Amino acid sequence: MLSLVIAFQVSAQTDAENLKKIYDNSLTNGMSYKWLDHLSNQIGGRLSGSLNAERAVEYTKAEFEKLGLDNVWLQPVMVPRWVRGAPEFAYIETSPGMTTNVNICALGGSIATPNGGVKANVIEVGTYKDLEQLGEEKIKGKIVFINRPMQADLIHTFEAYGGCSSERYSGAREAAKYGAVGVIVRSLNLRLDDYPHTGSMSYGDLPNSKRIPSAAISTNDAELLSSMLALTPNLKFSFSQYCKQLADVQSYNVIGEITGSEFPNEIIVVGGHLDSWDLGDGSHDDGAGVVQSMDVLRLLKESGIRPKRTIRAVLFMNEENGLRGGRKYAEEAQRKGEKHVFALESDSGGFTPRGFSFQSSDAMLAKVQSWSDLFKPYLIHFFEKGYSGADIRPLYKEGSDIVLAGLRPDSQRYFDHHHAANDTFEHVNKRELELGAATMASLVYLIDKYGTDTISNTNELKD
Amino acid sequence: MLSLVIAFQVSAQTDAENLKKIYDNSLTNGMSYKWLDHLSNQIGGRLSGSLNAERAVEYTKAEFEKLGLDNVWLQPVMVPRWVRGAPEFAYIETSPGMTTNVNICALGGSIATPNGGVKANVIEVGTYKDLEQLGEEKIKGKIVFINRPMQADLIHTFEAYGGCSSERYSGAREAAKYGAVGVIVRSLNLRLDDYPHTGSMSYGDLPNSKRIPSAAISTNDAELLSSMLALTPNLKFSFSQYCKQLADVQSYNVIGEITGSEFPNEIIVVGGHLDSWDLGDGSHDDGAGVVQSMDVLRLLKESGIRPKRTIRAVLFMNEENGLRGGRKYAEEAQRKGEKHVFALESDSGGFTPRGFSFQSSDAMLAKVQSWSDLFKPYLIHFFEKGYSGADIRPLYKEGSDIVLAGLRPDSQRYFDHHHAANDTFEHVNKRELELGAATMASLVYLIDKYGTDTISNTNELKD
Repeated sequence: MLSLVIAFQVSAQTDAENLKKIYDNSLTNGMSYKWLDHLSNQIGGRLSGSLNAERAVEYTKAEFEKLGLDNVWLQPVMVPRWVRGAPEFAYIETSPGMTTNVNICALGGSIATPNGGVKANVIEVGTYKDLEQLGEEKIKGKIVFINRPMQADLIHTFEAYGGCSSERYSGAREAAKYGAVGVIVRSLNLRLDDYPHTGSMSYGDLPNSKRIPSAAISTNDAELLSSMLALTPNLKFSFSQYCKQLADVQSYNVIGEITGSEFPNEIIVVGGHLDSWDLGDGSHDDGAGVVQSMDVLRLLKESGIRPKRTIRAVLFMNEENGLRGGRKYAEEAQRKGEKHVFALESDSGGFTPRGFSFQSSDAMLAKVQSWSDLFKPYLIHFFEKGYSGADIRPLYKEGSDIVLAGLRPDSQRYFDHHHAANDTFEHVNKRELELGAATMASLVYLIDKYGTDTISNTNELKD
Repeated sequence: MLSLVIAFQVSAQTDAENLKKIYDNSLTNGMSYKWLDHLSNQIGGRLSGSLNAERAVEYTKAEFEKLGLDNVWLQPVMVPRWVRGAPEFAYIETSPGMTTNVNICALGGSIATPNGGVKANVIEVGTYKDLEQLGEEKIKGKIVFINRPMQADLIHTFEAYGGCSSERYSGAREAAKYGAVGVIVRSLNLRLDDYPHTGSMSYGDLPNSKRIPSAAISTNDAELLSSMLALTPNLKFSFSQYCKQLADVQSYNVIGEITGSEFPNEIIVVGGHLDSWDLGDGSHDDGAGVVQSMDVLRLLKESGIRPKRTIRAVLFMNEENGLRGGRKYAEEAQRKGEKHVFALESDSGGFTPRGFSFQSSDAMLAKVQSWSDLFKPYLIHFFEKGYSGADIRPLYKEGSDIVLAGLRPDSQRYFDHHHAANDTFEHVNKRELELGAATMASLVYLIDKYGTDTISNTNELKD
């Protein structure tokens, strides 16, 4: 009994020492910030199918190779190619010649406006669900303005995002059914400012002839348009955009791995997505997750930790407007019969990490929570059930044993930058980014060492 | 027994409801950000004795008056008046005519350089404690360059600050003893950038004739100077600064209070400091603490909470270079025989709050920790022994029953801005600031309701 107690104490001490090594290395010798500097400032926005996306593939593969990993490779995947074209232009016209310019951007996947733009009266709604009640009579020939603010009193800002994101995704599809000629959606931003925030939208199975252009408007201009509509209900709104959907092109997931010493066939994935929107340089979404995932491998190696299982960093392509990389990776894993035991995604910004959310069994969550004292010196305190990440989600199949997790950084500033022109390098703090990488590496170290719970995933996954 | 259990449940429910009211109000209807916008953008840096400091006194008093508090008043206090004068100028000269300009700023309290500046060879040290060993022979006639980086692997950045701040405070006093002609101190900044960071320094009892000018150099330029010294040990450094210490002037602490309904003579203080350094606009240090303290009173009032004890918001003057406001407040409290039971300071920036540190008995800390479930929905998890705040610290007297606490926000970005020209409004996030105000109001609400521990402060206070 005594020897067991001593064994446990020795192990706990070693774990504490290994976590300290990982954090110290990340904060004093980390690579995340340098890599992100290159991705953001030397490459820039990395929309799927763009030249920049391909440069990012090349760069990250070369950096993986410098780390002396056991395997580095590219996994081919066909991705959609949507291009924005010339800058969008929009204004409010209260009477002929009396115009006020406003800030908009096309939503990803939208069609262009006809030559000369769209100009029409506006009908404002709080949600696209109001459209049905208004009906064709009140909507036909108009621009639908969906003005739904994110809910400020939710502490987890991703909940506030989830509450509004279907307005952006489905607004045009729904409004087109009632004869609208365009859709303007309030940007998903908790702050009042001038940046329009893009993001994906879909026409579903709407035939091409019925599709209407859809754009996001900055929160300041959404407030302006709403108050001008209250004064002048018959004002007109005009917008022009030049985006188009081209044919799919070849791209890649970038993968690096350290082979497991005892169970090489059991795979732990850590990842983020290499593509980004085009307006900013994609530093928070998701340059941060990419470089942190790369650094997990480096941190384990440099801390002298030889993992028992295979640790694979996957830089997924096309999360933003297709999820082709995540789906392809899961397909290939199934085709090869690979056994994935754990997957962790960082795709919530490079802010101070607070902990993780898990799609797992209660027993697995309890196991992770039993490690919370090890994380306490690093102010990591959040271990709860919740969402993991879009790219790793396809790895879960009914009845499979995989545990999924998402890094949970502080989320208060995230939607100030998300999908907008101000998602840029100077808004990422070096230490916060490095703490995230160390926190991910620490969890991967513990899960590799102690394994996942074998009676996991009796619970339903909930997104 | 059952009735007791029910009573407890009802009470816990009410507490949870009241915290939710406080947080909701702060996030949807808070005043902190508007007040800070005015303090930062309409007034600006508020160095003690400056016109801006007096404008801030006037503004915050007027805003207190609009809240319909029970009492609002100014507490007179004489403060030191140090002025920076014309911008500083410095360069490194490797040979006659070969110069590189560098970014410096005078430290608060320093004397000016003589007309034409100081120009001399440089001796670099890691800490002022190295000076004794070097001795007068190696130091006399030279500029001492103290190049001590903050320690990056400490998670609590205030610890890293504490480890270096005496270099800034005492460097000139120590170097002067060995005949140095000036002191250049590496800025207390965890990041490499071009901003010099000011802060207080002291000559102690060094006679006027022995005093030497002292300035901070940006971290980038500290690295540059150090590497140039390695190549060219006999390079010269030149700097000019024009600061001076004028006679003390009259200023004020600004105070607003809600009178307690049951124990009006038991006082709870919540505060921040109204003065700031002059380089930026003092948004994080400590405009944030000022507006959060003001908002605590408003949040309690608007949430329909009538406190049992008197809640007093105190906006202290002159924390940065004299602490006269904090000392004066404590003196007056003692003179009037006021009973202070609790004091809370916010002076660590307007970032996402994580919790509080307490100078209290173990029993009091345990009492606070028993409330942690109430704070969990707001991601407030940190309740530990530790530092409270400089302004409230003088309220503690040997054997007194007061409990002291400090708000602990996320500290990773704080020293990027602290005492520098980039401590400005755009670096404060509205939601993070509002979460801090709500977190403070929630603790004040609970402490008012349940009281402080009567066997408190048997433990020594540790700063």
